[in-house]
Amino acid sequence: MSTLTKTLAQLRDASRTLALLDSEVMDRALKSLATALRKNSNAILKANAEDLAKMDQKDPKFDRLKLTEERIGAIAKDVSTVASLPSPLHRTLDERKRPNGLHITKVSVPIGVIGIIYEARPNVTVDAFALCFKSGNACALKGGSDAQASNEALARIIHDVLQSEGIDEHALALLPPDRSVTEELLHANGLVDVIIPRGSQSLIDFVRENATVPVIETGAGIVHTYVDKSADLKKATDIVLNAKTRRPSVCNALDTLIIHRDRLGDLPSIAAPLAEKGVSIFADPDAYRALKGKYDSALLREAKPEHFGTEFLSLKMSVKTVSSLEEALEHIATYGSKHSEAIVSEDQQSIDTFLKSVDAAAVYANASTSFSDGAQFGMGGEIGISTQKLHVRGPMGLTELTSYKWIVRGDGQVRP
Amino acid sequence: MSTLTKTLAQLRDASRTLALLDSEVMDRALKSLATALRKNSNAILKANAEDLAKMDQKDPKFDRLKLTEERIGAIAKDVSTVASLPSPLHRTLDERKRPNGLHITKVSVPIGVIGIIYEARPNVTVDAFALCFKSGNACALKGGSDAQASNEALARIIHDVLQSEGIDEHALALLPPDRSVTEELLHANGLVDVIIPRGSQSLIDFVRENATVPVIETGAGIVHTYVDKSADLKKATDIVLNAKTRRPSVCNALDTLIIHRDRLGDLPSIAAPLAEKGVSIFADPDAYRALKGKYDSALLREAKPEHFGTEFLSLKMSVKTVSSLEEALEHIATYGSKHSEAIVSEDQQSIDTFLKSVDAAAVYANASTSFSDGAQFGMGGEIGISTQKLHVRGPMGLTELTSYKWIVRGDGQVRP
Repeated sequence: MSTLTKTLAQLRDASRTLALLDSEVMDRALKSLATALRKNSNAILKANAEDLAKMDQKDPKFDRLKLTEERIGAIAKDVSTVASLPSPLHRTLDERKRPNGLHITKVSVPIGVIGIIYEARPNVTVDAFALCFKSGNACALKGGSDAQASNEALARIIHDVLQSEGIDEHALALLPPDRSVTEELLHANGLVDVIIPRGSQSLIDFVRENATVPVIETGAGIVHTYVDKSADLKKATDIVLNAKTRRPSVCNALDTLIIHRDRLGDLPSIAAPLAEKGVSIFADPDAYRALKGKYDSALLREAKPEHFGTEFLSLKMSVKTVSSLEEALEHIATYGSKHSEAIVSEDQQSIDTFLKSVDAAAVYANASTSFSDGAQFGMGGEIGISTQKLHVRGPMGLTELTSYKWIVRGDGQVRP
Repeated sequence: MSTLTKTLAQLRDASRTLALLDSEVMDRALKSLATALRKNSNAILKANAEDLAKMDQKDPKFDRLKLTEERIGAIAKDVSTVASLPSPLHRTLDERKRPNGLHITKVSVPIGVIGIIYEARPNVTVDAFALCFKSGNACALKGGSDAQASNEALARIIHDVLQSEGIDEHALALLPPDRSVTEELLHANGLVDVIIPRGSQSLIDFVRENATVPVIETGAGIVHTYVDKSADLKKATDIVLNAKTRRPSVCNALDTLIIHRDRLGDLPSIAAPLAEKGVSIFADPDAYRALKGKYDSALLREAKPEHFGTEFLSLKMSVKTVSSLEEALEHIATYGSKHSEAIVSEDQQSIDTFLKSVDAAAVYANASTSFSDGAQFGMGGEIGISTQKLHVRGPMGLTELTSYKWIVRGDGQVRP
């Protein structure tokens, strides 16, 4: 038996006891963890300094890796928030009394053992543990090697808290940051119930291509906002600006503005605040003509085919001109990644058609796609945004980290 | 573009229109299909005869492949039943009004394109189409080559009905029965949303090992019934007999009887009706001693290790003796496949512990595991019993063939 197999078997055994824990015990442990993180911030910062010393300060990962007193405080606060959320477990999801007297209930239960593979973000270590633990799951965390010292310090604190609360410390295993461990984890059927990759598209692709364990993809967002013929100009301007520039590096950020031909005259006005934020625009021929001379020329380019269906993750966007709602729907169906899509319109029929027709995790009318986020949906924390259609679509919060079982109570019934 | 890719792209396009169809239109098409199947039974039987002529009559697949007027009538009746079930689509699953005025609803939608890989059972062709169609999904069916003529005849009837009802006939594609098609289907990410293998364990294993498209496993059932110290003798006898012998070849059939040591004296009485049905028993040493001389000696053997954790799918079972409920739970955790597990007990505390502790799709108290079936749970039809924990656990009916999307209605909201 490999070391990993032994570790995963311990997690599987621990998951059986976690499934039976009272939620009060779990919440108390999470509150203790929040306290312990604050109390041990020096040890965490010291470990983090070791990791940082090995990384070039110009590496874009440097800032994500870096912890501060304040960031540790924010991580601890998030743990307290998870503790205060209602338990997603032991809820009756369905109840049936059958003609033969069988009483059938569908009850939420933990998934079991969750594997999470992520990159150099030590906050994910605590975050993912808290959400998995609150939903009764054991978790195997495989972080990036760049953050190993930080992750080990955090895992040590978690293990100490679990132990002092009398909970099986195998609720969490921090796996060594070796590629071979990832490979083995992806094939640990029977020990691991699901794997969630968090990070770059290449990581997600690798996991999907190689895993035999079920995977929940938290994938790329190629996000459109369609400004309809009837759109309110102020709403359109505000929504496009917010969706593009609030946090350009996240998956719900706008990539392509689709504009109805009749509103090309308003395009310079919609685009104006984008120039102030330094947004580069790749415009199709009609939009380019509408913007030329009216948008910062250093930021305006003619769109090439690769500018549609691209997740920019930066202050870049494309503009597509359409002659009808149907053409907009067609563009989204062709180029979207089924993440978040929006219409800005004052026409109820166009709104209804858009909301019904667009196949995406979240579809918006007259609101910014920036709201695609578990907390904004009122779910508390989230472990990512699923772009697949099985099990969970959109934000993956505590409820989505559970499965269910059917409980059948009888009095000697047999099936004819 | 390969032929298969072209076909799957047609299904994907069709799935967009299916998602928008009125449920009345779908139900009318299904009712027409039921009529058409009865009316065309001669053509179906003729095609079926071609398939049968190529198969050895002694092949166990022969009976599953064989259609009769009566069986076609039963298939047509099942289609009518599906038509009469409530639509699983466009249901509001959750609704939230956020403090910022956003109105968020979670609405059930089709999954999209479903691939189903199965063996020589022509009834599955109609069954799977009906369930996928009713839930708004297009389906790619890859049946066994043994049933190809029958499947083609059935698919022709379905296509004719779709056409005459004005529905895109690419709601269904019957794929050629080539291994290379299966391989390609398993990697059709972006075109196929989920693959459901139905059939032997080796088929399911092959799909799990090779697919990059998400898979729903409808796997083996290694099923236990635990007769507790406090069990009612009659209930225990009836339940064990029913669970083992009602249909020994299906996944919810009993494989291992676990008996509390204090009830070994009742074991001959519990086993007696099993001998009449010709059930072979592999008993552990204690159970063997209890049964020796009191059970048909031709049917009684000492258990070997391989008799535990085995899905027999025949008139065979094993008996395991335990000294406590905890030992029974441990045995089930070690050897079960998380399908269906039962306790027979008159002690409420033991029942509650069992129902809470056992990790399986369906857990029973004082009832036969034979009830693990969509229709018995009141779901109407089912496409299989899932033994995985993501998306669906246990019977997979119409509701489980849907996904959802989040619809967010605003009035210009942007995120601070």
